[in-house]
Amino acid sequence: VAHARPSAGYALVMTVTTKQGGEALGALVATLTGAGGDVAGMFSEPGDDGTTTHVAHVKAVSAQHQDRLVEMVRALPGVVELDAVDQVFELHQGGKLAIEPRHPLVTDDDLAQLYTPGVGRVSQAIADAPERVWELTGRSNAVAVLSNGSAVLGLGDVGPAAALPVMEGKAILFKQLADVDAYPVCVDARSADELVAVARAIAPTFGGINLEDVAAPTCFEAERRMRDELDIPVFHDDQHGTAVVVLAALLNAARVVERPVGDLRVAVVGAGAAGIATTELLLAEGVGDVVLVDRVGVLHPDRADGMNDAKREIAARTNRSGCRGGPAEALRGADVLVGVSGPACVEPAWLAAMGERAVVFALANPVPEVQPEAVPGNVAVVATGRSDYPNQINNVLVFPGFFRGLLDVGARRVDDAVKLAAARALAGVVGAAELGPSRIIPSPFDPRVVHAVAAAVRDAAGPSDRSPR
Amino acid sequence: VAHARPSAGYALVMTVTTKQGGEALGALVATLTGAGGDVAGMFSEPGDDGTTTHVAHVKAVSAQHQDRLVEMVRALPGVVELDAVDQVFELHQGGKLAIEPRHPLVTDDDLAQLYTPGVGRVSQAIADAPERVWELTGRSNAVAVLSNGSAVLGLGDVGPAAALPVMEGKAILFKQLADVDAYPVCVDARSADELVAVARAIAPTFGGINLEDVAAPTCFEAERRMRDELDIPVFHDDQHGTAVVVLAALLNAARVVERPVGDLRVAVVGAGAAGIATTELLLAEGVGDVVLVDRVGVLHPDRADGMNDAKREIAARTNRSGCRGGPAEALRGADVLVGVSGPACVEPAWLAAMGERAVVFALANPVPEVQPEAVPGNVAVVATGRSDYPNQINNVLVFPGFFRGLLDVGARRVDDAVKLAAARALAGVVGAAELGPSRIIPSPFDPRVVHAVAAAVRDAAGPSDRSPR
Repeated sequence: VAHARPSAGYALVMTVTTKQGGEALGALVATLTGAGGDVAGMFSEPGDDGTTTHVAHVKAVSAQHQDRLVEMVRALPGVVELDAVDQVFELHQGGKLAIEPRHPLVTDDDLAQLYTPGVGRVSQAIADAPERVWELTGRSNAVAVLSNGSAVLGLGDVGPAAALPVMEGKAILFKQLADVDAYPVCVDARSADELVAVARAIAPTFGGINLEDVAAPTCFEAERRMRDELDIPVFHDDQHGTAVVVLAALLNAARVVERPVGDLRVAVVGAGAAGIATTELLLAEGVGDVVLVDRVGVLHPDRADGMNDAKREIAARTNRSGCRGGPAEALRGADVLVGVSGPACVEPAWLAAMGERAVVFALANPVPEVQPEAVPGNVAVVATGRSDYPNQINNVLVFPGFFRGLLDVGARRVDDAVKLAAARALAGVVGAAELGPSRIIPSPFDPRVVHAVAAAVRDAAGPSDRSPR
Repeated sequence: VAHARPSAGYALVMTVTTKQGGEALGALVATLTGAGGDVAGMFSEPGDDGTTTHVAHVKAVSAQHQDRLVEMVRALPGVVELDAVDQVFELHQGGKLAIEPRHPLVTDDDLAQLYTPGVGRVSQAIADAPERVWELTGRSNAVAVLSNGSAVLGLGDVGPAAALPVMEGKAILFKQLADVDAYPVCVDARSADELVAVARAIAPTFGGINLEDVAAPTCFEAERRMRDELDIPVFHDDQHGTAVVVLAALLNAARVVERPVGDLRVAVVGAGAAGIATTELLLAEGVGDVVLVDRVGVLHPDRADGMNDAKREIAARTNRSGCRGGPAEALRGADVLVGVSGPACVEPAWLAAMGERAVVFALANPVPEVQPEAVPGNVAVVATGRSDYPNQINNVLVFPGFFRGLLDVGARRVDDAVKLAAARALAGVVGAAELGPSRIIPSPFDPRVVHAVAAAVRDAAGPSDRSPR
């Protein structure tokens, strides 16, 4: 992978025993560093038998790079033992979540209050007045992270079991960033019918459903029907989380290049869940024009190849200039590229044909559509999905605060007004003094983010009759 | 309710402001105690204006009794203000569970390891080798507490929302007693078809399913099909948790009355989920004979009224003496009553017609089939489902350790051998020196219980190819 930087996502803990002492340490660090590893920590301890054991914490750029680093160290003279532990796999042992009681249950009196006979009165109270479920159970703070694993990260259709680590990761982000109790529900359900059936069935347990990593076009029908049939908010993060964070970044990029949003022509490369929902939200915000491109080419009303209902619907409302062709044609003269497709599919030369002070969002992850180092001089702002470049456009800026806001007011549904408000609030976190080409979006760990997004969602969604906790 | 005792399940915190000082306190305590309340704590604090504020923690026997206590205190001379908080409802505010990250996620490096890009490798590893889900996710320790709320405690068909407090209570018992991460899944699913469909869908997230509070006869078909169609253990606690704990108590009661189990004639009153499963397990253990009685009367092969498939099946294998009639006839000459039916439906006179040194389990909760104080002299051992009498027969003695054992070995299913082993192990916790008419079963908080049950389940279920965590 060109230009990739070492990441904690590929960290190794190497335990290396050498015959020599200090001199071996120098060779070890030089080898790891020289081969592109980032040595984040190292200590050495002499053994009883004249050997020395060195423990190194090394970030690599990929799994292949990890292997190469291990082989290079193994080949060093004097190495008698080598153990390498992949820190990511170590951290995932046994999963990333625990269920914890909010009150201790250790005596007979606790049992009588938290279980029988006390709990019977609580159940009866809810049976008598169903809205009390929002006060007397965890439902008011519970979100299902629901996935069938049909479009997981860049991995594709790996199924529900392989999706579970991702959904656990989302659940800890929900908790850590927004105090939302999210639970991963990875389901064996392929069709929209099956997905809707399981969402309907489990809905009484949850205050909201974060649909996640469901492939297009199934996701469109599944989400639409869930919205119609359930009385809790449903939010497909791959669609709307992406749309909200892209719009927020675009609002700030427009400030940087000093262009009104209504004048911008945007090329969206990728017409899956993220591309279509982002296009919808950009149109709702009043962006000048959007041209959507997929593997077949530019979407237009006369195209027949590789279409589906969602593409036909959006083709009728985009591409006002009647553009034909592929991504090169879509980018010619465009002001903004939003790439939500695959690795390295955009040529730098196409970007050179964009307008002056162009904006490039290359969001494919981990390998962007185009490397930030390769963009031509007319590009004024570059953003990616990666944490190791400036302007990381990541859904984690949205979903925790978004659901915090929805749960706080007991919202029943999500509409465009709520998403637009969230995007504007997220953009607003970057003040005029901070704003710049390398600073159009805040860090996911900026504590202002969750509060700003949640407050905007609360205001836009408005109060409901459901008692918040 | 005759003979009921004050319980923490009906505790009030009363804050009473009186014109007088210490003398009012005496009247307050005398009133509460005289009216049958149990004053567990009290303190008084003088106010600035000559009044005194008293805070009393009072256990009542029922919700009606709570109201009466409040009215009596309000009527006391000199009371100027009274606030009564129901402690059970206070503890249930916002629910009883929280989801907690097992590792902190506060830096970009944490994000890279627990979320993208690191988590992508973990997902890929599971896609490549599906059995690694047991090692790299929480599935190996996760149990769904699945209910449709169609038979909740003694409340009946209150639905999924009203069932949620009970399932949350089970989840905290799972965690506190056996370190199992259980999550309540209350579903809108009425038929066996719908229940099986949702269980199938969510199965990839869980290592086991604790089916709970699903009405008979739907529960029989639902559980049977789940067992056939899923590759994780399914255990309907109302059936098998009850069966295991009853058998354990019966094994020890038989030791107390010095009778071999194979000689005993048992009358089971109540032919719902618990009654039928208990009968099955008693037969599997080799109990002499069982006569099963429901609202219509004794079950026998010629009966047509009020039967279903489960009752027909069990009628063919029980009642070897050909008994006809109702509970009075079933109990005549019987050695053991297992009551799993409703409040106060067994007459003490029927018990007098049982054999010498009879055993009575009156498990309806909170009001037993017959009050322990009312049993005649031929009854040697009495047990109930309540914590305020000796010999509390409660499923909480079984399900935490049972699932702990199943998860520890990555079991795929539960059979009679596992249930019998669990019952014998639970009985074995009460040593010969402890055993007696008031001590046939240990306390749910006895730390030996979970370990004994889990070890027996592990041994009986045997190792599997699933990596335990």
